[in-house]
Amino acid sequence: MKYISQELKQFSKQIKFAVDNYKPHGIDKSKLSNIVICGMGGSGIAGRIAKGYFNDKLDLPVEIVNDYVLPRYTGPKTLAIFCSYSGNTEETIAAYKIAQEKGCQIIVITCGGEIEKLAQHNEHLIYKVESGLQPRMALGSPLTYLFLIFFDLLGQYKNADLQKIVDFVVNSDDYVLQTGEMVNKYISTIKNKYVIITDSFFEGVATRFAQQIQENAKLEAFVHVLPEANHNAIESYYSKPGTNFIFLNSRNNHRTNLRFAFVKELLTKFDVPMMELLVKDNSLNTLFHIIYQLDWLSLQVADKADAVSNQIPNINSLKEFLSKQ
Amino acid sequence: MKYISQELKQFSKQIKFAVDNYKPHGIDKSKLSNIVICGMGGSGIAGRIAKGYFNDKLDLPVEIVNDYVLPRYTGPKTLAIFCSYSGNTEETIAAYKIAQEKGCQIIVITCGGEIEKLAQHNEHLIYKVESGLQPRMALGSPLTYLFLIFFDLLGQYKNADLQKIVDFVVNSDDYVLQTGEMVNKYISTIKNKYVIITDSFFEGVATRFAQQIQENAKLEAFVHVLPEANHNAIESYYSKPGTNFIFLNSRNNHRTNLRFAFVKELLTKFDVPMMELLVKDNSLNTLFHIIYQLDWLSLQVADKADAVSNQIPNINSLKEFLSKQ
Repeated sequence: MKYISQELKQFSKQIKFAVDNYKPHGIDKSKLSNIVICGMGGSGIAGRIAKGYFNDKLDLPVEIVNDYVLPRYTGPKTLAIFCSYSGNTEETIAAYKIAQEKGCQIIVITCGGEIEKLAQHNEHLIYKVESGLQPRMALGSPLTYLFLIFFDLLGQYKNADLQKIVDFVVNSDDYVLQTGEMVNKYISTIKNKYVIITDSFFEGVATRFAQQIQENAKLEAFVHVLPEANHNAIESYYSKPGTNFIFLNSRNNHRTNLRFAFVKELLTKFDVPMMELLVKDNSLNTLFHIIYQLDWLSLQVADKADAVSNQIPNINSLKEFLSKQ
Repeated sequence: MKYISQELKQFSKQIKFAVDNYKPHGIDKSKLSNIVICGMGGSGIAGRIAKGYFNDKLDLPVEIVNDYVLPRYTGPKTLAIFCSYSGNTEETIAAYKIAQEKGCQIIVITCGGEIEKLAQHNEHLIYKVESGLQPRMALGSPLTYLFLIFFDLLGQYKNADLQKIVDFVVNSDDYVLQTGEMVNKYISTIKNKYVIITDSFFEGVATRFAQQIQENAKLEAFVHVLPEANHNAIESYYSKPGTNFIFLNSRNNHRTNLRFAFVKELLTKFDVPMMELLVKDNSLNTLFHIIYQLDWLSLQVADKADAVSNQIPNINSLKEFLSKQ
């Protein structure tokens, strides 16, 4: 692959960095009423992934905020986690300041920037990430920190499991080979949009994939979640759509499994490119494995679509435009 | 319009029905820790719309559940609201049973069916909706009930405001005329997919529109939310996409306004069909007005795309398939 693959190969190292540098936060879950996780783009997606994983494990509401403001209910019994790779994301900084005013309990995950300065000044807990990458290629550390923070709240110690993941995803050559096969499924329609059909457990992972297709392959990508999409989105499909489909099902629910089977059958009629990812179980290892596999797949798509993955001219123009206002 | 427009003309009557039949629920907000709203498709979307509206007004976390299960945190301090038009939606019934076991405080909004029987047996509060429509064409009553339930929690009495809305949206001929003009924007690309770009306040309304395009016009439709989409989705657009765009901005945040301006400028270069909805303010009246306007627009698109809006063969096949398992 021409671009950005050297950065993606750091995934295992990023996970290890967070495992090695994690310190318990000492926050008592029984004193919390809710959690908000704030961040944008590649920095925000870790929260969405964690929310899906902990939905049946953590007895606190978790809300993902991708915006300048916090919901009204946030306050001293809120744990507010801010994730900004650069530390200079304006939405995240704005939300941080609101959390500070409202007396939330605050944790910051960042490389540095303004949010680090604010957090140092306010003596908030900071988990540091190594700098020098594009934010979307730096998911490993923030994601791992977030999982460790949540396990910590639950009084669970999962460092051994995470260490296993470090070793599992270190073989990036295997991922390159595997996804090099997978991308052939879409080769004749490579520049069509991508729709990933997922269940709730993997919604964050699916959203991550859509974002990676957008940023790396410069193509449109969207997510449908089952069972909800069975109540509306399937009515879109009465003729062959210009869409590449991917299915991602945790197999947590036997009725949802049937719903996946129905949608696959429906789309098979139109002979559209589609593929189901193999999901071995709902373990942490499988979760990280699938994120990494889909990240590589996005680079394979980018490569075949002749996209310049390491450049983000639109986002750069936007930043310039905003800085002048 | 050939199909289903007689049903949509009932919107005003549906709102009035809920205003006339609403009784205070008597639930004390100070005894709640969180709220979940469960429902699927046309019955589930009311919750998502209400969540956006009350985000800066209600001091309790609100989660929308479109699934068979409830998050772990739900319990006796959870207000769980179940919305199923038919009363026989399997996901909603499954979630209801879990809420009942966990001792949640329960409210049901329905025409009847199994969920009404269960709620009667368990002596849960039921708000009745008039039957005989397709669920997506029956949004008026559930949405109004939900707003009244929330205002009630806040100790606010908004019946006069809602009565004004009844009178405002009664003029369906105006909506038909207006949206008949609007649809011309998309006439030469009518069967392309639709992407509605919204801010958080209107996310539920935008999702509603996407669902209406899917079900009524039998076309693909998706939602992008700003500012988040500025961090990834804009990288999809370096050449003309086969997409019809609609912009929906509450204008709540001046930085987000700039982000909308940037995206419009970016897409203008490609000469794609796009339109911004006029949003007068963030009042309840404007919210209902825009929902109704977009509902009519979906029927206009359906009409021009020669879709048979009143039939849902895929959903019917799915139900048959599931019933045999």
